[in-house]
Amino acid sequence: MAELVAIDDPADPRLADYRDLRDVELRKHLEAEHGLFLAEGEKVVRRALEAGYAPRSFLMAPRWLDGLADVLDPTDAPCYVVSEQLAEEVTGFHVHRGALASLHRRPLPTVDEVLTGARSVLVLEDIVDHTNVGAIFRCGAALGFDAVLLAPRCADPLYRRSVKVGMGAVFSTPWTRLPGWADALPSLSERGFTTVALTLAPDAVPIEEAVAGIDQVALVLGSEGHGLSRRWEESADRRAVIPMAAGIDSLNVAAATAVACYVASRR
Amino acid sequence: MAELVAIDDPADPRLADYRDLRDVELRKHLEAEHGLFLAEGEKVVRRALEAGYAPRSFLMAPRWLDGLADVLDPTDAPCYVVSEQLAEEVTGFHVHRGALASLHRRPLPTVDEVLTGARSVLVLEDIVDHTNVGAIFRCGAALGFDAVLLAPRCADPLYRRSVKVGMGAVFSTPWTRLPGWADALPSLSERGFTTVALTLAPDAVPIEEAVAGIDQVALVLGSEGHGLSRRWEESADRRAVIPMAAGIDSLNVAAATAVACYVASRR
Repeated sequence: MAELVAIDDPADPRLADYRDLRDVELRKHLEAEHGLFLAEGEKVVRRALEAGYAPRSFLMAPRWLDGLADVLDPTDAPCYVVSEQLAEEVTGFHVHRGALASLHRRPLPTVDEVLTGARSVLVLEDIVDHTNVGAIFRCGAALGFDAVLLAPRCADPLYRRSVKVGMGAVFSTPWTRLPGWADALPSLSERGFTTVALTLAPDAVPIEEAVAGIDQVALVLGSEGHGLSRRWEESADRRAVIPMAAGIDSLNVAAATAVACYVASRR
Repeated sequence: MAELVAIDDPADPRLADYRDLRDVELRKHLEAEHGLFLAEGEKVVRRALEAGYAPRSFLMAPRWLDGLADVLDPTDAPCYVVSEQLAEEVTGFHVHRGALASLHRRPLPTVDEVLTGARSVLVLEDIVDHTNVGAIFRCGAALGFDAVLLAPRCADPLYRRSVKVGMGAVFSTPWTRLPGWADALPSLSERGFTTVALTLAPDAVPIEEAVAGIDQVALVLGSEGHGLSRRWEESADRRAVIPMAAGIDSLNVAAATAVACYVASRR
């Protein structure tokens, strides 16, 4: 059973993992240096633990203890019990989902480990927005994708906002960082995947046509602003587009991913 | 040419339209009572004016004046020129897109006016999240939908965040509020539309099958949390589902809309 520790001093050093959660830059450093990440809300906290992540500690207001009793029972990590006001003061926002957990990161698997047995994978180039990364993980999980690979500059899927938007899909979906950027797509082709880049390039074919007949597909998605780099666009096996109404801004990357995953799932 | 008015007092009453933009409740009242809405960023401001919305005023830092000269030229509305610091103080956030405009709302068209000539329409029940409303408008516009109808409790498409996320699609897409909730879907069926409700109901058929062969389609979307009301679910002509992987949370409403619009656009 987690040890319940009542804390009423916002400066208590035991709350360090939970400090200033809205300060993205500070959190990036803190989480990387201490090898931790945060899960927020009863459902997401539960999913992190079910996926085998080891908790460092929990933070919650008294009224959330009962609902998470089964989660707290088998662990030795401390559970800091604080008022909602103190939680807000420490984290910097109103924790309306009530429960937070700080968990240990794990070493990332190799690309080969992640790809073992996979038939449909997502490959993200420089998606720097945590909301979009979370949304893409959720889409992929819902539409039958088996794994996600991230370019070196892609945003962290274990960042609190990614985890929250993804509803914990980042825990259930195998993922890792690609070791390099330049030859990432050819190295997937060598492993037997057909890489299909989503792009507005003039030679792109409709997505349905692009994925037709492919066994192992790697769907490649680029940044929100500028799309894929030329290097990735040109080194993909196929270029695909979602047919859209004339004169309209393209779909945002999360919506485009949803459509592309749906189409690929029915190939 | 808009009159340029330099203002250096954050309490200046002429800045009232731009105050506390992050305070949703306050803004709702203020915008309704004064019949105004806000557009943010050069591209969105320009689209609002191109769509014929009349400006009440503009607010921007000096460095944005040149880029919007063509927009400011034909109007008599004042342009308040302020420092970026003062803009932040008044609005409550860092206005990184630089330009804001306050515009007059217009009387909403009737449902019949909005539906004239429409072949594909979106019908939103209680989507209360402005981000989702904006994302849905953008999706619909990109994937060839002609109009949007909103149930009485659906969030405001002209709220700043909806406008921003929708990249101004709310200006180019005809939309209005449904006058009532209870018989909204049957009244669309009477007008010749086949209403297709997106739902997880047990009798729902795959979306491709549900929209096959329909000429005029009304795609019906429910709230983020609980989906459609039973009334709407049962009074729709057809119930449709997006086939998903077992055991996974459903797609969020914006992703589901993207898939459904894509499929319907290819019916």
